[in-house]
Amino acid sequence: MEESFNDLIFGVHPLIEALESGQNIDKILLNKESRGDSFTKIKQLAKSRFIPVSMVPLQKLQRVTRSNHQGVVAFISPIAFQSIETVLPALFDKGKDPLLLILDGITDVRNFGSILRTSECMGVDAVMLPAKNSVAVNADTVKTSAGAIYNIPICKEWHFGTSMQYLKNAGVRLIGCTEKTDKLASAGDYTGPIAIVMGAEDIGIHPLTIDKLDEIVKIPMAGKTASLNVAVATGMILYEVQRQKNK
Amino acid sequence: MEESFNDLIFGVHPLIEALESGQNIDKILLNKESRGDSFTKIKQLAKSRFIPVSMVPLQKLQRVTRSNHQGVVAFISPIAFQSIETVLPALFDKGKDPLLLILDGITDVRNFGSILRTSECMGVDAVMLPAKNSVAVNADTVKTSAGAIYNIPICKEWHFGTSMQYLKNAGVRLIGCTEKTDKLASAGDYTGPIAIVMGAEDIGIHPLTIDKLDEIVKIPMAGKTASLNVAVATGMILYEVQRQKNK
Repeated sequence: MEESFNDLIFGVHPLIEALESGQNIDKILLNKESRGDSFTKIKQLAKSRFIPVSMVPLQKLQRVTRSNHQGVVAFISPIAFQSIETVLPALFDKGKDPLLLILDGITDVRNFGSILRTSECMGVDAVMLPAKNSVAVNADTVKTSAGAIYNIPICKEWHFGTSMQYLKNAGVRLIGCTEKTDKLASAGDYTGPIAIVMGAEDIGIHPLTIDKLDEIVKIPMAGKTASLNVAVATGMILYEVQRQKNK
Repeated sequence: MEESFNDLIFGVHPLIEALESGQNIDKILLNKESRGDSFTKIKQLAKSRFIPVSMVPLQKLQRVTRSNHQGVVAFISPIAFQSIETVLPALFDKGKDPLLLILDGITDVRNFGSILRTSECMGVDAVMLPAKNSVAVNADTVKTSAGAIYNIPICKEWHFGTSMQYLKNAGVRLIGCTEKTDKLASAGDYTGPIAIVMGAEDIGIHPLTIDKLDEIVKIPMAGKTASLNVAVATGMILYEVQRQKNK
């Protein structure tokens, strides 16, 4: 764990206070052996605010902090997450064609920060990602984002498939970027409301997500077997979108 | 200093042996108070192999290693650098139009690694950078390059301006990517032998380098004041080159 002291809340009562006061929390780790009213309360508060709770062995908590954590450690998020169902209508209200970015399983905090920085430069209106097993937002993310994390709405969605379907129903075309096609990115159609979908570092776009896409395109490579970093590939496809808008 | 133990050589005789055996060395730090035949020999060997030597206060050496360094610390490079004057003729001999990348002052080791990874994917034939004050090649570079550092010739040039002129004389067009132009990257001409020139993280392309460029282009942005990360911007311009080649 690389999180610094400032990113953590530990101890039963500090966490309950943080939860009740609306502090932005990324996730909570609880000692899986712990029992009692306070732990039940933490779980209920977390559930009501859609904050993920992991039940972990004591050793894992010890690795996160040597402080007196009382079986409870929470990771503070530097930002408040939003919901795509709030963000999208507001974008439509502005009379523009939304450009969204969907990150389907990115796990590297620096890649995430880098993608946010690029997104801000390239006019992405919001970034959506699944809440489950998702990339953390920590000091490295903030740093690599060069502040963009504060300037772009980030939607962590619990029911990711449902949120994708919501976008489709709202008229947003989902365009995936993957090597598994012959269609070049330059041949893609980026007019109207669109969401660019990028996959995880290791497995790319999840098969369940692929099924929902309206179009898939690829970055042309120079015949090498090596693969692009996902943050760089995201930059390339967003460049292509901007290039076509500037034609 | 983040270098691990394995990246260092310290002590007078180990360094002389390493220099005489042809070990790849990135740079050498010498205690500026040190005198004697061994130090003179180290300086002569380093000069003959174009390895930069910095005379530094003892405190700086102490920060690099707590071992008994005897006033001598060298950073091992995982790769051997090449010369553009050897690399370019070999590319022409293959009958292809070389695609080179010139990094004019990149200092972040991860950006450098990331750029090498992208370069390999996008068909860059060689990467050239100035030897003076240049980015280090360390374990982080190797990791972020995903191995590409071993697959692409890297030319560190001592007389950077002369090397740029050498390229121009050889018929290579120098195309800089900077915000200081109205010409979009998509309007650039990437036919024939070319070198894409990218600037440093902080100040961009050096004024002396700008004067040598045949063309400058910019990445279209979405009206934000935020700036792109140089590794991502490099990806975008190399994408544009590939896009035009694939048309």
